[in-house]
Parts: sequence; C-alpha cells; structure tokens
Amino acid sequence: MDGLRERLKRFGADRDWGKFHKPKDLAVSVSIEAAELLELFQWLPDDGPIDEDLKANIANEAADVLMYLVLLCDKSGIDLIAAANAKIDRNEERFPIETSRGVAKPRKGI
Amino acid sequence: MDGLRERLKRFGADRDWGKFHKPKDLAVSVSIEAAELLELFQWLPDDGPIDEDLKANIANEAADVLMYLVLLCDKSGIDLIAAANAKIDRNEERFPIETSRGVAKPRKGI
Amino acid sequence: MDGLRERLKRFGADRDWGKFHKPKDLAVSVSIEAAELLELFQWLPDDGPIDEDLKANIANEAADVLMYLVLLCDKSGIDLIAAANAKIDRNEERFPIETSRGVAKPRKGI
Amino acid sequence: MDGLRERLKRFGADRDWGKFHKPKDLAVSVSIEAAELLELFQWLPDDGPIDEDLKANIANEAADVLMYLVLLCDKSGIDLIAAANAKIDRNEERFPIETSRGVAKPRKGI
Repeated sequence: MDGLRERLKRFGADRDWGKFHKPKDLAVSVSIEAAELLELFQWLPDDGPIDEDLKANIANEAADVLMYLVLLCDKSGIDLIAAANAKIDRNEERFPIETSRGVAKPRKGI
Repeated sequence: MDGLRERLKRFGADRDWGKFHKPKDLAVSVSIEAAELLELFQWLPDDGPIDEDLKANIANEAADVLMYLVLLCDKSGIDLIAAANAKIDRNEERFPIETSRGVAKPRKGI
Repeated sequence: MDGLRERLKRFGADRDWGKFHKPKDLAVSVSIEAAELLELFQWLPDDGPIDEDLKANIANEAADVLMYLVLLCDKSGIDLIAAANAKIDRNEERFPIETSRGVAKPRKGI
Repeated sequence: MDGLRERLKRFGADRDWGKFHKPKDLAVSVSIEAAELLELFQWLPDDGPIDEDLKANIANEAADVLMYLVLLCDKSGIDLIAAANAKIDRNEERFPIETSRGVAKPRKGI
C-alpha cells in the first residue's frame, strides 16, 4: 500500500496534475468510480457468476476506486490501512460474536 | 492489506455474515459508503481545510469504502493492490509525461 | 412539476439558502440522495416485496433526489420534463421495437 | 409527469424490458445515472459557468436520473410529485423561516 501511494503521488507530480487533487474533488471521484464499478452489475442477478471478462472489469474499476481513496487519504493525512483496522476494532465491539451470530446482518455491520 | 483482508473475512465468518456478501451487494455497498464519504464535503468549498473532526470522519468513511472493496475483490479472486499497479502501468502508457505535463488533466486520467 | 420547482425556489429564498445551490454542489447532492435511496435495498434480495415501511422510505428518499434534480435543472436553465421526453425520443430511435423486443436489455437502454 | 410515466412504461412494455425493472435494480440505476451527472462536474471549480455543451450534457444525464426514479416510484406505488410536496411540508416544519434565515444551511436541509 505504501508503494502504491508513492507511485500515485509521483504519477500526478510528473504530470503536474496534483493541483487538481483537492480533497472534495477526490471524494467526488471516489463516488464516480464506485458507480462505474456498480454499473458492471447493473441488471445482473444477485448471485450471478463472475466470468473472466467481468473479473477483469471489476479489477479495473476497483483499482480506480482504490487509487482515488489512497490520494484522498494522503491529502488528508490519513493512514488508510490503519483507519480500516481501527474501524474493525470498533465493529468488533459493536457487534460481539455471541449476540451477532445467526442474527440478520444489521444495515450498518460490515 | 493481506492482514486486513484476512481480518475482514474472519469478522464475517465469525458472525455468519459472509453469506450476505454477494459480489453485487458488495458493489452496492461500496457505492453507498462512497456517498457517505462524499457527504462529508457537501456544501463545503472546494479548497476548505481538513480540520481534526473532518479528518476523523474521512478516516471512518474511507475505511468503510476500503473494507467493502477488499471483500468484493476477495470474492472475485482479484488482488486489489496488483490491480491498482496494473492500472497505473496502463495510465503511464496512455498519458506519457512529455505530452501530458502542463496540459489540462483529462477526465479519465487519475 | 412547475409548482414543485417554484415551491422549492421559494423555500430556499425564504431561508437565504439559495446561495448554497451551486450546480456542482447540487449534482453532488443528487448523488448523495441517490445513494440513500439505494441504501434502502442494501442486502435485500433482488425481488423482495415493497412493504409499507419500505414504500414510505422510498417515497422520502426519492423526493430528495427529485428536489435536488429540479434545483440543478432550474439553475442550469433546463426544463427537466422536456429533457426526459427528448431522451425518450432518442431512445426510441436507438432501440427500435422490431429489433429490440425479446432481446436482452442493453446496458444503456432505459 | 403523468405523461412521462405512461410513456416510459409503454417504452419498456413495447420492448419487453419491463421484466428487468425490479425496484432494487432501478435504485441501482438511479445511483449510476446520478454519478454520470456528477461526472460532468468532475475537476470543475465550484462556481464555473454552465456553457451550452455542459447544459446539454446535464439535460441528458438528469433525464436518465428522472426516468429511473419515475419507474422506481411507479413500481412501488408512489406518486413522486406528491412525495416531494410532502417532503417540503416536513422541511417547512423542521426549518422555520424565522430560525433558519441567515443561518448556515444544515446538512440535511434541502
């Protein structure tokens, strides 16, 4: 992840595009790319197979979401992996195994 | 990233929630969380500061986006970091430094 | 629709909130509200029933999407209903009944 | 709006595409089209002008959002215009003019 972040920053710096990367615009871009990822599943059944074409497209769009997310976190001084681990820590407290298992997944439980 | 993925899978397995994690629903969830991230910037100016409160909220929502993205890639047999590196490889070819530098950022250039 | 638009404009003007309604921020708001609408279906099966609670929630979130859409179109000098009719005109040309019927729905066909 | 809804239903029925229009997939489609609308503003400044090209593109994408929204409401037994008016009724109560005017727009105030 550290290597990816440094590579992305150098990519933008080399092209003088870093100036476009304001946090709000990066958040806009995460949403746009997330919708392109979702579009791959538009009209498909819930439980359809992931064939090689779909897999390649998911990889491509998921990469775009991740890249903007990494740039946004970098601009905001956030360690993304640490943030995710901290969120799982909180979720482990909010949803103890004993009372969560076998219960319908709550809307907000990862 | 590997550690995060394994932790997320164990979290779901422990609560028997993995059965909810169909690829389409995970893609839906990435979009929903991306919008919650974007909501943090709603009505804010383009170039506003990131104070400590906003930073904590960004970390929290960016974590949610990442977690669903990791689960989707895991379900789809995709190595997310490798996919992002492959995308940067392609972008380096599409947008050579010599012809891209100092030029307006294209819509599709990360 | 005309009555709705005028009511929305007056609502904003009465509270001096119209100044927040820049086109880009209204487009951001349409996306955020669309995701709240989508969230109502998160983890639900494709073909689940619409009970009274879900129906009330859909009405509530669909209203938010429409309101920002109407404000965005008003700011941009667009007649939303006319735009939708013009789009159907184009779709009728792109997807003639004779060649479209009984064929898998194309990704881009409404 | 009634004419638009009937035209959309006939368009789908003529092509036998109505069977694709499950509520969840229509909500997914509203989100996807909302992101395409947002993409028109990606990297643009907050307060940029709406030129004729941008206006035509906004009209086109706003039409897509509206069309899926109308179909979703139709499938769910919801009168979209009435839902929006009911929402404004509630917002008028939540945000009285006297206490709202001149105050920063709240996140959730249309």
